[in-house]
Amino acid sequence: MQKPTILVTNDDGITAPGIRNLVKFMNEIGDVTVVAPNSPQSGKGHAITINQTLTFEEINLEGPQKDYALSGTPVDCVKFALDKILTSKPDLVVSGINHGANSSINVIYSGTMSAAVEAGVEGLQAIGFSLLDFAWDADFSHAKEFIQKIVRNVLENPLPKGVVLNVNIPKLAASEIKGIKVCRQANAKWEENFDERINPHGKKYFWLSGYFNNMDEGEDADETALAEGYISVVPVKFDLTAHEYIAELGQILNS
Amino acid sequence: MQKPTILVTNDDGITAPGIRNLVKFMNEIGDVTVVAPNSPQSGKGHAITINQTLTFEEINLEGPQKDYALSGTPVDCVKFALDKILTSKPDLVVSGINHGANSSINVIYSGTMSAAVEAGVEGLQAIGFSLLDFAWDADFSHAKEFIQKIVRNVLENPLPKGVVLNVNIPKLAASEIKGIKVCRQANAKWEENFDERINPHGKKYFWLSGYFNNMDEGEDADETALAEGYISVVPVKFDLTAHEYIAELGQILNS
Repeated sequence: MQKPTILVTNDDGITAPGIRNLVKFMNEIGDVTVVAPNSPQSGKGHAITINQTLTFEEINLEGPQKDYALSGTPVDCVKFALDKILTSKPDLVVSGINHGANSSINVIYSGTMSAAVEAGVEGLQAIGFSLLDFAWDADFSHAKEFIQKIVRNVLENPLPKGVVLNVNIPKLAASEIKGIKVCRQANAKWEENFDERINPHGKKYFWLSGYFNNMDEGEDADETALAEGYISVVPVKFDLTAHEYIAELGQILNS
Repeated sequence: MQKPTILVTNDDGITAPGIRNLVKFMNEIGDVTVVAPNSPQSGKGHAITINQTLTFEEINLEGPQKDYALSGTPVDCVKFALDKILTSKPDLVVSGINHGANSSINVIYSGTMSAAVEAGVEGLQAIGFSLLDFAWDADFSHAKEFIQKIVRNVLENPLPKGVVLNVNIPKLAASEIKGIKVCRQANAKWEENFDERINPHGKKYFWLSGYFNNMDEGEDADETALAEGYISVVPVKFDLTAHEYIAELGQILNS
């Protein structure tokens, strides 16, 4: 039986420990090609590079896979891989493992998840993985069995058209993880609190800063599952239409 | 009666004709503050500025409104306006008028729509407006009556929590526009075709390029409405959960 072909990308950059671990886990399952940003791209959301040009390099990293570093965003990486690197559509696209959570509303800011969503738009099976640990030297070893289980499951049971997965993994020992829970995106947001400073020339400048505000205690919300020690899996779609509101809005706007 | 307070932003930059027209239209309805990018930010999606600092300037432009130019993305502008510029939450946030369509899948790449979505995440009423004309000297005059009608309607009939509007306006004379149609996001995508070139030093570089592929002839899809001469209004939500797939996925992953 032919091994599945797997495209790996991320938003922390091609040399981040998170993606190197994911590549190792995927090499045990399929034929892997990596096309990932050549620099950190956190918080880039679904940005694409329109007003600048892109370059790429093949680089040599440990393992049997091919690695290509692109000067763009995570979404650029998926588009570029499909058009210029891969000779056929991959069986699966995985993004991550992100250093830090992409649960709840973070799905819309996350370059990791936007790469997975872009793959979904392209009609491909796609999963984004994130670990609830921002540290560069985070321990990803406990994630292996769960990530491989989810990947094998998706390869065997393809996701419906228009759906990709957002997987978040608690910072716990494997033995402490209670299991995998399929959830909805929690209702949460960031409360802004820009950090104001003065530069050496006397001009004000700001760092985007704030704190995370989870407003959702629902048992079926991803934040709840993570707090309870589960790996959260949210099926994510990119038809953003609020279908349930179309009829009422039509009446309001045409009255 | 007190006039409504309106925050205006965009992704083409604070001096773009699209936003200057929108400001003029909004000055007739409310008290306007503009916080917009100091440079073009098209295709920035929901990007936020994490690894760089931000600066802003108050600038003097025609009209009674205050104008602030920020060195960030459209989403940064909304966050910064709420935390550092406005003294209270605005009654409405409008974004645009974008030079170019943001219908169908473009909602996820669009800085214009991401600013509106960010305002929605903040719990605010929000609308993104786009004109189907990329030209810098596009004619926005026919859009006025429709934009003002939609804005007044939303101020009188607030959108439900978690919903913002994506409004696209055909490039037609006002007399040729058939009306306003509430639609769903069409199933469409961009087919990549990166433009490959060689720089003076012999190195390959690429421009992201491609063509738009509408795969959706549905009468209720925004692309169809626009092709037929309607203004399309899609209610957009940012709970990306594919709720209808949670139960089945739970069985698959825990089997």
